[in-house]
Amino acid sequence: MTNRTHREVRLTARPTGPVTDDLFEIVEVPVPEPADGQVLVRNSLMSVTAVMRTLMNEVTDVPMPSFVVGEPLHGAAVGEVVAAPGTDLQPGDLVQHRLGWREYALVDAAQAQRLAPGLLPDPAGYLSQGPTALMGIDRGAGVRPGDTVFVTGAAGGVGSLAGQIAKLRGASRVIGSTGSREKADRLRKEFGFDAVVIRGAGPIEEQLRAAAPEGIDVLFDNVGGEQLQAAIAVARRGARLALVGALATQLSDGAATTTPIDTLSLLSRGITMRGVALYDHLDIVPQWHELFAQGLREGTLAFPHARLHGIEQAPRALQELLAGKHLGSVLVEL
Amino acid sequence: MTNRTHREVRLTARPTGPVTDDLFEIVEVPVPEPADGQVLVRNSLMSVTAVMRTLMNEVTDVPMPSFVVGEPLHGAAVGEVVAAPGTDLQPGDLVQHRLGWREYALVDAAQAQRLAPGLLPDPAGYLSQGPTALMGIDRGAGVRPGDTVFVTGAAGGVGSLAGQIAKLRGASRVIGSTGSREKADRLRKEFGFDAVVIRGAGPIEEQLRAAAPEGIDVLFDNVGGEQLQAAIAVARRGARLALVGALATQLSDGAATTTPIDTLSLLSRGITMRGVALYDHLDIVPQWHELFAQGLREGTLAFPHARLHGIEQAPRALQELLAGKHLGSVLVEL
Repeated sequence: MTNRTHREVRLTARPTGPVTDDLFEIVEVPVPEPADGQVLVRNSLMSVTAVMRTLMNEVTDVPMPSFVVGEPLHGAAVGEVVAAPGTDLQPGDLVQHRLGWREYALVDAAQAQRLAPGLLPDPAGYLSQGPTALMGIDRGAGVRPGDTVFVTGAAGGVGSLAGQIAKLRGASRVIGSTGSREKADRLRKEFGFDAVVIRGAGPIEEQLRAAAPEGIDVLFDNVGGEQLQAAIAVARRGARLALVGALATQLSDGAATTTPIDTLSLLSRGITMRGVALYDHLDIVPQWHELFAQGLREGTLAFPHARLHGIEQAPRALQELLAGKHLGSVLVEL
Repeated sequence: MTNRTHREVRLTARPTGPVTDDLFEIVEVPVPEPADGQVLVRNSLMSVTAVMRTLMNEVTDVPMPSFVVGEPLHGAAVGEVVAAPGTDLQPGDLVQHRLGWREYALVDAAQAQRLAPGLLPDPAGYLSQGPTALMGIDRGAGVRPGDTVFVTGAAGGVGSLAGQIAKLRGASRVIGSTGSREKADRLRKEFGFDAVVIRGAGPIEEQLRAAAPEGIDVLFDNVGGEQLQAAIAVARRGARLALVGALATQLSDGAATTTPIDTLSLLSRGITMRGVALYDHLDIVPQWHELFAQGLREGTLAFPHARLHGIEQAPRALQELLAGKHLGSVLVEL
């Protein structure tokens, strides 16, 4: 086993502007040997997500480790166990873990989660951002039947599922936002959004007011900035705003951005803003898998995603994600 | 009765800057005659509060009527019923209503709330801002035993009670903010605050970090702006921030002010911001009166307030309140 090699993607430097190819290096290294209690996994799929843009910087406010210059990046992956001495796992078991961006991963047994065979028809489903979407809808906002819901960043891996889950929870009207008319059309035709406002096609607040003349009850916010301000402007009394992502920050080359908020309007209309992050809500993951499996079976949920092929495409996958080229999750087959 | 006169305070113009004497006019008018279903009240006490600065402007985002140029201002008052034909009220009954800023008020019976005689030892207590304070502590923030609580605008009528209520609810440490060392000393010595940060004595965030080295669990915010930002900076994971007032707006001559908020930090630390306003929580008023009566009896609550004498002092009372001259509620005896 030791004379085999595999490829991993390393960070060469912290970005000072846009994410470019030269920030990544694909390196061929020996396939590692598992010690007792370790699991050697042949990764078959990994996901790229917007938070990776944040982790390319040195961040301290996020309880996830930043990427380290000179070392491989990391992120969710699924793969097959090759060897797992001294553990309960068997070769051939499908597992999920946090060491993507490499073809083979050496994972501590405690960090490798065995996936129930056959629960989801396609292992790619385990890399959906559904847990984050469900967390925001159920725990961040508490969507109830009859709600008018605004999902920002609706064409992303989180937003495209959040809109669908809001409908499952009885929302009477779901409005999304995205960056192009093409994605807006797909969100309406393929994923059940009732209306979509488009970044760059005029003031968001105006578009949102036209799409929700009686205001919104819920915001599921992946973006921040102008979109959050527009949502507050049209929020009804008692509205619940779930803060789930900060793409405005991630898309502005990682610089921290702030949103000017008129707190008087929050209190006069009894508005709640709740920040939620998945690492505080990990117990929702199995709940999501059940809901997802059922939704796929019954045709009430779809999993929008794009797949790129080969680890050498991973840096491009991240750049395309940040450029808004895809609808849904972005996965790389390894 | 009809040939008697009384005085009322009218708004002469909307302010374009600081609140000055010429914005008010004291006018002598006939004491009105109650029709059936109306209550004529001899007002004995009225309160002035910071929201009155907001209502001097033409505001639409607050579900309270703005003051009208050429008409008397309004606000909480207590007084004795003079006559109340065709109602359940009797002459001599003590009532609370919303038509202060005048010596006699003609109130619709439905708007006059009879006060239980003897519940509070001093009728002034009915004009405390305790309902707002209790709402913020219990419903906005949900203060729990062991919490470290930061109360901004702690020397105001709301803040000075909020700090005391937080202690009643088991907070282990209550930190206030105010504008002078003298008020800070009184908050610590007379009203149970553990520490007080002072506006103008250096960056609030630095002072707050020194007063709460392990961070805060709760913010009770009367102010917004820099103080809200400082609170977010030192908020612990899962912190609850109740937005109860926006003095930063009211003290900046009524211009709407916004607070730049880094939403990424709200979600990475699972922070909730909840705006609460009393008109959505009026059911808390009787609950407060009971808690207050008990706290006064047992010596666990004090009612800090200042009293000015005579309706002609009401405009000055509001100006002094906005200038931070007093500790606690500001009342005018009529």
